[in-house]
Amino acid sequence: MKTINIDLAKRSYPIHIGQNLFENNDLVAKYTTQKKIAIITNETIEPLYVPSLKRLLGEKEVLVIALPDGEQYKNHESLNVIYDELLTHKFGRDSLLIALGGGVIGDITGYAAATYMRGVDFIQVPTTLLSQVDSSVGGKTGINHALGKNMIGAFYQPKCVLIDIDVLQTLPDRELSAGLAEVIKYGLIRDAAFFAWLEREMVNLLSKSPEQLMYAISVSCENKARVVSEDEFESTKGIRATLNLGHTFGHAIENVMGYGNWLHGEAVACGMVMASYMSMQLGWVTAQDFDRIKALIKTAKLPIDPPDINQVQFMELMRSDKKAVQGKINLILQKGIGHAFLTNDYPHETLLDTINQKVF
Amino acid sequence: MKTINIDLAKRSYPIHIGQNLFENNDLVAKYTTQKKIAIITNETIEPLYVPSLKRLLGEKEVLVIALPDGEQYKNHESLNVIYDELLTHKFGRDSLLIALGGGVIGDITGYAAATYMRGVDFIQVPTTLLSQVDSSVGGKTGINHALGKNMIGAFYQPKCVLIDIDVLQTLPDRELSAGLAEVIKYGLIRDAAFFAWLEREMVNLLSKSPEQLMYAISVSCENKARVVSEDEFESTKGIRATLNLGHTFGHAIENVMGYGNWLHGEAVACGMVMASYMSMQLGWVTAQDFDRIKALIKTAKLPIDPPDINQVQFMELMRSDKKAVQGKINLILQKGIGHAFLTNDYPHETLLDTINQKVF
Repeated sequence: MKTINIDLAKRSYPIHIGQNLFENNDLVAKYTTQKKIAIITNETIEPLYVPSLKRLLGEKEVLVIALPDGEQYKNHESLNVIYDELLTHKFGRDSLLIALGGGVIGDITGYAAATYMRGVDFIQVPTTLLSQVDSSVGGKTGINHALGKNMIGAFYQPKCVLIDIDVLQTLPDRELSAGLAEVIKYGLIRDAAFFAWLEREMVNLLSKSPEQLMYAISVSCENKARVVSEDEFESTKGIRATLNLGHTFGHAIENVMGYGNWLHGEAVACGMVMASYMSMQLGWVTAQDFDRIKALIKTAKLPIDPPDINQVQFMELMRSDKKAVQGKINLILQKGIGHAFLTNDYPHETLLDTINQKVF
Repeated sequence: MKTINIDLAKRSYPIHIGQNLFENNDLVAKYTTQKKIAIITNETIEPLYVPSLKRLLGEKEVLVIALPDGEQYKNHESLNVIYDELLTHKFGRDSLLIALGGGVIGDITGYAAATYMRGVDFIQVPTTLLSQVDSSVGGKTGINHALGKNMIGAFYQPKCVLIDIDVLQTLPDRELSAGLAEVIKYGLIRDAAFFAWLEREMVNLLSKSPEQLMYAISVSCENKARVVSEDEFESTKGIRATLNLGHTFGHAIENVMGYGNWLHGEAVACGMVMASYMSMQLGWVTAQDFDRIKALIKTAKLPIDPPDINQVQFMELMRSDKKAVQGKINLILQKGIGHAFLTNDYPHETLLDTINQKVF
């Protein structure tokens, strides 16, 4: 078992990473002292882990809310299902919500916790690689709006994150790869040594070797913990913004293709290639490093080429990104492998050239 | 002009109380440096103050969102109108929302600001006495849910509160009285001298004398500022909870009668009489003080007797109050005039006796 602390003064909390979580009575018991507990999950995850989790919770009053599975359900209607259930079952401010699932469940549960009676406690139990290394950590919560992804939300930290790497054994290969996109991201933005380790160990990660998974998840969470501790609310300093490497391009791809057709991690992977390409055009990344980046993403079974989107639509979607300030598109670009930064100081043509590139 | 500071470390902000706000270019200019500004108001207030406010904002891009007037519109549908408008007009994280209206507009605008793109700046320009002395100050934001008032919300502080007492000249008498309920509350919970001043000056307040209004609003805001600074998030210590004197009874009344039929301030006034009566039954308030409380509330043209609600329904509604902890109804009760506290340590029969009392 490994523990990483997110250092945020009164809002600090631990991330516990280990195996056999659903048999480890002590750890779950420690974080579930409330009398009323709601497990919020999806219909795919419910039969797999809810029975064991309920057993661990013993005598407590446990309400299970299972939403349909998929990004298209991270919306107001699902949120309202949660509110209705909590109110109908007279959950008070002293209740606990448990987010048991992937990024969709974590985001919507966190947002429900942030806004139900102006805030109740919640814990994250992420069941996908992507949510274990990224979305469950750091307190970004929210839902999608018809006019944009994650447009409605709040910064709201959980009381702890409990990561069981065993759950990844049942994760579909495509979702494992999607999670690896965010793992690779940490190497690219701030950890060149980790990037090199990933180049050596990618094959073992794809075959779900526990030792390598444990290491990759721990290093990813450590990187995220540092970034979030330095810049919890994504200030204009742009420290936390670097976690969005590839995301401005990626969100545009997801939006055009319809959520769920391209997985978030797939769109981010392609977006990172685009950001690296643009950085190369600007002389900040060598052709050799660009090739390493493409190769690692390809080895992780992730797409490197974008779908066919016309320039006008791509630009329009990028302009609606939350990082845009007074109409200018802020991008995370790279200087070599292991360093990324927020900028809007680039020639417009280089961005156009990047989004018009069909094959990388 | 009087300025009161809310002391909340990084989230500190001033309350400016004065006259001729809509002609005072400097003050508005100081707090509206953003390029994109949305004025959120209701259809009653819009023709009265939006033209002058827009004139003060000059060259900026100003979006006006006017909701229908009334508590019944403090709901998800109105919130979504705001989100839709902001997204359609490409408002980014660097935008500003201005809440121009009473408590409903302040609460929903604050909540929209808290949740739009995980938080944008907003300022409060309250136009009713109730919102000037209570709801615009302290960062409680939210909307109603079909199953309960203010059940969905967030703590989110404005950048400033701009109070113009001149706007009260057009306020209907019934709404003035509703605001006075919250003014009286400050005397009851923590300021016996202010309570005595109100006994002497109530007639001048009812006739909207500027000097007395200025004093009553300033002292109310000062009291609220102290309480909020000590206990921003309404912890279990119960300091901030005292601001809810009369509110648990009051919310039950509002809920049964339908929001808007009894104004919030009217329900709170009656709720404060009920809390005082219960405190008297428990030996904490003298009969003489109970008579003073009733008399002041009556002089302010506020109701002291509850509508006809049966005991079972009353208890049920009180149990769904947000202050309830593990099913026990927490109440704010009094020890004399000028001191209130949070407790659930009272005989159940005394509560039943209080809600069964038809005439006080």
